[in-house]
Amino acid sequence: MILQILYIVAIVSEAITGTLAAGRYRMDLFGVLLIALVTAIGGGTIRDIILDMHPMTWVTHPEYVIMLCFCSMLTTKIPYFFASLNRLFLMLDALGLIAFSIIGVNKAIEHIEHEFGFIICVISGVITGISGGIVRDILCNKIPLVFQKELYASVSIVACILYYCLYFYTPLPNDISVIITLIFGFGFRMVAIHYKLSLPVFIFDENTKKKNEK
Amino acid sequence: MILQILYIVAIVSEAITGTLAAGRYRMDLFGVLLIALVTAIGGGTIRDIILDMHPMTWVTHPEYVIMLCFCSMLTTKIPYFFASLNRLFLMLDALGLIAFSIIGVNKAIEHIEHEFGFIICVISGVITGISGGIVRDILCNKIPLVFQKELYASVSIVACILYYCLYFYTPLPNDISVIITLIFGFGFRMVAIHYKLSLPVFIFDENTKKKNEK
Amino acid sequence: MILQILYIVAIVSEAITGTLAAGRYRMDLFGVLLIALVTAIGGGTIRDIILDMHPMTWVTHPEYVIMLCFCSMLTTKIPYFFASLNRLFLMLDALGLIAFSIIGVNKAIEHIEHEFGFIICVISGVITGISGGIVRDILCNKIPLVFQKELYASVSIVACILYYCLYFYTPLPNDISVIITLIFGFGFRMVAIHYKLSLPVFIFDENTKKKNEK
Repeated sequence: MILQILYIVAIVSEAITGTLAAGRYRMDLFGVLLIALVTAIGGGTIRDIILDMHPMTWVTHPEYVIMLCFCSMLTTKIPYFFASLNRLFLMLDALGLIAFSIIGVNKAIEHIEHEFGFIICVISGVITGISGGIVRDILCNKIPLVFQKELYASVSIVACILYYCLYFYTPLPNDISVIITLIFGFGFRMVAIHYKLSLPVFIFDENTKKKNEK
Repeated sequence: MILQILYIVAIVSEAITGTLAAGRYRMDLFGVLLIALVTAIGGGTIRDIILDMHPMTWVTHPEYVIMLCFCSMLTTKIPYFFASLNRLFLMLDALGLIAFSIIGVNKAIEHIEHEFGFIICVISGVITGISGGIVRDILCNKIPLVFQKELYASVSIVACILYYCLYFYTPLPNDISVIITLIFGFGFRMVAIHYKLSLPVFIFDENTKKKNEK
Repeated sequence: MILQILYIVAIVSEAITGTLAAGRYRMDLFGVLLIALVTAIGGGTIRDIILDMHPMTWVTHPEYVIMLCFCSMLTTKIPYFFASLNRLFLMLDALGLIAFSIIGVNKAIEHIEHEFGFIICVISGVITGISGGIVRDILCNKIPLVFQKELYASVSIVACILYYCLYFYTPLPNDISVIITLIFGFGFRMVAIHYKLSLPVFIFDENTKKKNEK
């Protein structure tokens, strides 16, 4: 139930941020809507394709697609209003990331045909959390942001691990596990943004090496 | 029957236009063939993956793949001849777009395992119509053309809606519905090209905003 | 058995070369790991999605994913060491390409639900061999290398055809067919690298044509 509400909050806020991101690339309205949809529901779509879970959430709930299109169109009408809520969206995006991650872990745990272990459940959560944004950036012809910014995928990974452990190794009811993961993950992401925490960058350039050797 | 013929006309003309598009990127023969195949059958492939329809058309008809490779290779031999048929290909491409859209709606309507409603049927048609071109542009490292040019996706959407309505809400036989949709969609696309109709472009740049405020 | 060993050698060497490739794009550790994983197991993933073979290899063997992450992280620690093994990796990569191709053909031949013929088996092998690298290049925002370099996809195609023929049209045991294909394909690739053999490039530019006509 909490997850259901969070899911809707998450896809709506992803659709709005996706719309604003598309605004930089001179796309027409259709392009913008598609970017918004991909950002919002692309992660779940890729997870369902990889783990073979059909029909997908949005296929059984096409009304979500309509709602997201509506949100995206509204955003194109008053973009500066939404952009001024920048901080709110950073927070909604963080909530969305954790919600997607938890939902992804959950879906893998409850997969009908196969029993997946710890690793696949975590991967399922991370795919749900981040791959919508990756496809958005591919469509906008950029190197995915998630590879270069503050801790984002890492927050998703930690949240997935935490939720999985709470689910299987504690007697807590599911709703409590969800809330603990949400609070922890959200806090972690906010701290990462505030202190600009990021993973070490790996730079490797054969030519530089050769120059140094000369 | 009409659809079968149109399907073949559509994939052939998409393969030829895909080949010509690839010619701008210094690709080798294999790259060109792959771009041609993706443009022609990529849309149907993505639809079948999302709606879980296996085996796909080209997997059960591998002879189509061979035919498309042959057309693509022929195009690399006499590209200027095909390019001089520019107008013909614009028309074939428009026919192809509508044919793909109708086929996509049809496949969703006749999906064996699930009953899909109006929205998913239209989405299925649009995915079939436009996503081959999107993958082609991703492989060529560009922002997809369909997001930036004259009405293209919109024509597909309108054609899908029209066909769906004719199919379910009129007593017309299927072939007649197909022909009406084809004529209407083709005319719409031709008008869009001629008058350079396009959707409004959404441009949003936070920095410009900030500058204006100063 | 040979294939099993080769598979592990192949994914490990692809993960290492993927990591080194990612080093040019200022990605963080997560981005690098993802690029490494995609390069190593992306080809098989795309094949399994297209031919509907679930669950995928890495989903049933999540320990491979962990192993690849470990290899990739090790590579980021001592990149110059691995880069100095450049020649070894060219050879491992060639072995990997052939191994992936054979595995892809094999999987299509042994597909449970459908009987695929020659063409789909070859396509399955080629997809397994090359599409990991294509997705890697898309994520790095480049035109896929495989479209522009020395014979690579062509080697995969020839190896797939050879293996298919040995499998069906000779009485040789499978292991012998695998070894023959490996030796032949590896030799072919080495010759292609040494003599810089490549497919003809197809360049087509409408504007140049128009200029010439004036």
